[in-house]
Amino acid sequence: MDGHCIGIVGGLGPYAGLDLVRKIFDSTRAAHDQDHARVMLHSFPGDIPVRPEFLLGLTDVNPGHAIGEVMAGLARAGADIIAMPCNTAHSPRILDVALERLRAENGHIRFIHIIEAALSQVRRIAQPGARVGLMGTVATLRTRLYQDALEHAGFTPVILDDGSCQTVQDAISHDEYGIKAASSPVTPRARHMLLRAVEQLAGMGMDVLLLGCTEIPLALTESAYFGIPAVDATRALARELVQACIPDRLTQE
Amino acid sequence: MDGHCIGIVGGLGPYAGLDLVRKIFDSTRAAHDQDHARVMLHSFPGDIPVRPEFLLGLTDVNPGHAIGEVMAGLARAGADIIAMPCNTAHSPRILDVALERLRAENGHIRFIHIIEAALSQVRRIAQPGARVGLMGTVATLRTRLYQDALEHAGFTPVILDDGSCQTVQDAISHDEYGIKAASSPVTPRARHMLLRAVEQLAGMGMDVLLLGCTEIPLALTESAYFGIPAVDATRALARELVQACIPDRLTQE
Repeated sequence: MDGHCIGIVGGLGPYAGLDLVRKIFDSTRAAHDQDHARVMLHSFPGDIPVRPEFLLGLTDVNPGHAIGEVMAGLARAGADIIAMPCNTAHSPRILDVALERLRAENGHIRFIHIIEAALSQVRRIAQPGARVGLMGTVATLRTRLYQDALEHAGFTPVILDDGSCQTVQDAISHDEYGIKAASSPVTPRARHMLLRAVEQLAGMGMDVLLLGCTEIPLALTESAYFGIPAVDATRALARELVQACIPDRLTQE
Repeated sequence: MDGHCIGIVGGLGPYAGLDLVRKIFDSTRAAHDQDHARVMLHSFPGDIPVRPEFLLGLTDVNPGHAIGEVMAGLARAGADIIAMPCNTAHSPRILDVALERLRAENGHIRFIHIIEAALSQVRRIAQPGARVGLMGTVATLRTRLYQDALEHAGFTPVILDDGSCQTVQDAISHDEYGIKAASSPVTPRARHMLLRAVEQLAGMGMDVLLLGCTEIPLALTESAYFGIPAVDATRALARELVQACIPDRLTQE
């Protein structure tokens, strides 16, 4: 029971949680079961109210409280490194409440932030001033989670118009064809809608594509589109987690 | 926080744990995140000694003790239904020790047994007396886990000769090309070796193919081979878990 233990707040959505765990394993050099990190995934989707509705002012129930309870449970079960594969839930109005609960449970847990992980990856592959095409939920874009971080780091965010942002949102969360309703496999309609959005961003001029919603890489799995390299925030987070937990086993890029 | 919570003993191997969680989600009718079951996966591969070596008498360290600790941790974290996606570890010499530890922690946890889940699925699709081609680790076959259960249920197990069983074992656990060393994706060599074994079993005459090792369905993902239906023990277990947790949301077969 020595060494670190990664705790994942799952269920936001369930398949995005699985995708992060898979990318942790995929980022590990391993010939035997025992070479892999200790990982816990707690996927309690029914406990956690919807995030966009809170951020967009449609409900007063802050999902940060329920997320904080999941984090506290992971800490009690032995996690010393925690992450959450949901970009929208990293909005400070949600995350600060969750981390406050976590700190009350245990002040020594390291939280690895998906936006920072994605930004580190953008820095690795792009020059200062590069144009970064951004895809995410409407709530993530409205709260400027990525825009502020990118601008602060000297990059230029490129964002679709409102109608196209809503198209991306529908590809993620539509009750019938959205990724949250059909993840395994994703519907061709959702994938097509996302690819059209990528094409629009490419037309606006971008040097890097940033997939800033953990549902999107369930549909867009390639490492580049139209010759433009893609940064998958989930994969960037997975690599930071392996680096924090078992750095000597992190795979080469 | 109402309702059941499924706890999965992961890490045996890590990708097999993920595969079970994925098949739980895939077996759930869901349009929203919140429609999915509460699931915990605790993947602590480094804590759990290798299973075949113990069953084949190469070590005295019974992995059941470490598995029992993982089960007890899942129970403390709130699981009331527990399962373990590793057929070999269901050998009574290992499982009995693990369940004794779990019962000491909490006597009210329901354990869902992968061999029983697979057997229920065989019963659903095959007539009494049917010939069931069996693929698994050498240790699973030597301990007659499936053979005894199948014969007791009135089926005839069909087993490869020792050389071919070793080939299947190598496809699972070889340091370079085995599924445990390369799961994502599986190597063509491992898949080819398993397909050749299936072909041999088909040549011996079988009505059903039973994939009795949780690594095998990472390589053999089809529902039938040479026109013979395949029972994937991991998928059978996933369906039993959804049935136990949120029966009204179990998908149609």
